[in-house]
Amino acid sequence: MVRYKVTLAYDGTQFAGFQLQLKQRTVQGVIEKAIKTIAKSPTRLVVNGSGRTDAGVHAYGQVVHFDFPFMMPATAMLKALNSLLPLDVVVKDCQIATADFHARYDTTGKRYVYRVSRGYYTNPFRRFYTGHWKYALDVSKMEAAIGDYIGTHDFSSFAASGGSIQNKVRTIFAASVSEDPHNGELVFEFYGDGFLYNMVRIMVGVVLEIGNGRRPLHDILRLYEVKDRTQARYTAPASGLYLKKVYYGDGPADQ
Amino acid sequence: MVRYKVTLAYDGTQFAGFQLQLKQRTVQGVIEKAIKTIAKSPTRLVVNGSGRTDAGVHAYGQVVHFDFPFMMPATAMLKALNSLLPLDVVVKDCQIATADFHARYDTTGKRYVYRVSRGYYTNPFRRFYTGHWKYALDVSKMEAAIGDYIGTHDFSSFAASGGSIQNKVRTIFAASVSEDPHNGELVFEFYGDGFLYNMVRIMVGVVLEIGNGRRPLHDILRLYEVKDRTQARYTAPASGLYLKKVYYGDGPADQ
Repeated sequence: MVRYKVTLAYDGTQFAGFQLQLKQRTVQGVIEKAIKTIAKSPTRLVVNGSGRTDAGVHAYGQVVHFDFPFMMPATAMLKALNSLLPLDVVVKDCQIATADFHARYDTTGKRYVYRVSRGYYTNPFRRFYTGHWKYALDVSKMEAAIGDYIGTHDFSSFAASGGSIQNKVRTIFAASVSEDPHNGELVFEFYGDGFLYNMVRIMVGVVLEIGNGRRPLHDILRLYEVKDRTQARYTAPASGLYLKKVYYGDGPADQ
Repeated sequence: MVRYKVTLAYDGTQFAGFQLQLKQRTVQGVIEKAIKTIAKSPTRLVVNGSGRTDAGVHAYGQVVHFDFPFMMPATAMLKALNSLLPLDVVVKDCQIATADFHARYDTTGKRYVYRVSRGYYTNPFRRFYTGHWKYALDVSKMEAAIGDYIGTHDFSSFAASGGSIQNKVRTIFAASVSEDPHNGELVFEFYGDGFLYNMVRIMVGVVLEIGNGRRPLHDILRLYEVKDRTQARYTAPASGLYLKKVYYGDGPADQ
């Protein structure tokens, strides 16, 4: 078997998330189907992702690995996959990996982007590609507040219930918010060693509420203390979230 | 009855075009349904568009008019419509019009945009919002060629069969192509007194073929002479086309 490491972009709108599910269209499902076809394999070939993304969540750079029954040049594999995959998934990079590479266990960090469109009404063209916030926002206040995420903290208040992970301590290397000069959308960016279930969407929700004045400027510090998910009520919608990059010892934090 | 003039933006992806069709989701259909609800009318209230758009074609500024059984302030009508319309249509402007205003017959011009994404593979996020061209293009050649559209010409070679209009002479006031610095997409823009069926998509196809060297630089002039639709083979896909603005005696050409 030959192990391949593949970097994907996908539009999550028409997927029931990344992870394989019976009778649902998932990213893992369409990739497993494509590699099974390429291999002419009678049995399932398993695809391992760096992590799940929820229904409606997008990716610029999701990473997966799989073992393939025979040797194919990486460029041939990339072309074969792109010729078989539906138009909402594209393989951006394909490499032959060492047999011990693991897309999930070897991650050293992830980078997420969250986009928020503003204005009173939703922009029809952005409804699947942004979250939407129609209330007032003080962007300089948000810029000041978001720095409170940087560092190593207990993110219990920022994890949706349902996750099975006990240790809620994570390190955020970078967190920023800025306005896209092209279309005025707010662009949040988070780079950390790992993220809990729904964590980015809750982090964005808290910063939006600070920007609107519903929370005090440094409420994030209080949320670290209380370790209570019910205090961070608003989870920004899946449509604005993008998994931008997965790191494997190649990030700035790894130097 | 009170006549309203309404300007709409819509994402055409999930519509079977503008025009009402039995058992199909159309822009006209969802607007007629909304105004019927607002009026609590037992009978159909007819919406008249400036013209049809095909399935998958978008609009930033489609204009419609309709007669409403009682007087409502224009801002109240705008809010009522936006609260009832699905998220892929938004009312951008609403005005009370004179009783003789007609969204279709009173047009003095229309402006269309056509967006083309490049790169070997389709960008998953742009598949419904651009046409796609993966071959080489000489943009300066296209800029030179597109000027041949400006002026009054017989566009018989640029009209899809199926149209019932006999007079194929139209005047193009402006035609341009440029690269969007934000994402590298090619942005075509056409402003004219009227457009035949599929005319913009055929015009774009011809310019792309000139840019690729498949046609000589001034092939547009030859196409005016031959008056033969089969000579302009390629119709760019609906997904890249946007009706940007409809003019009613208020365009630069009307000054």
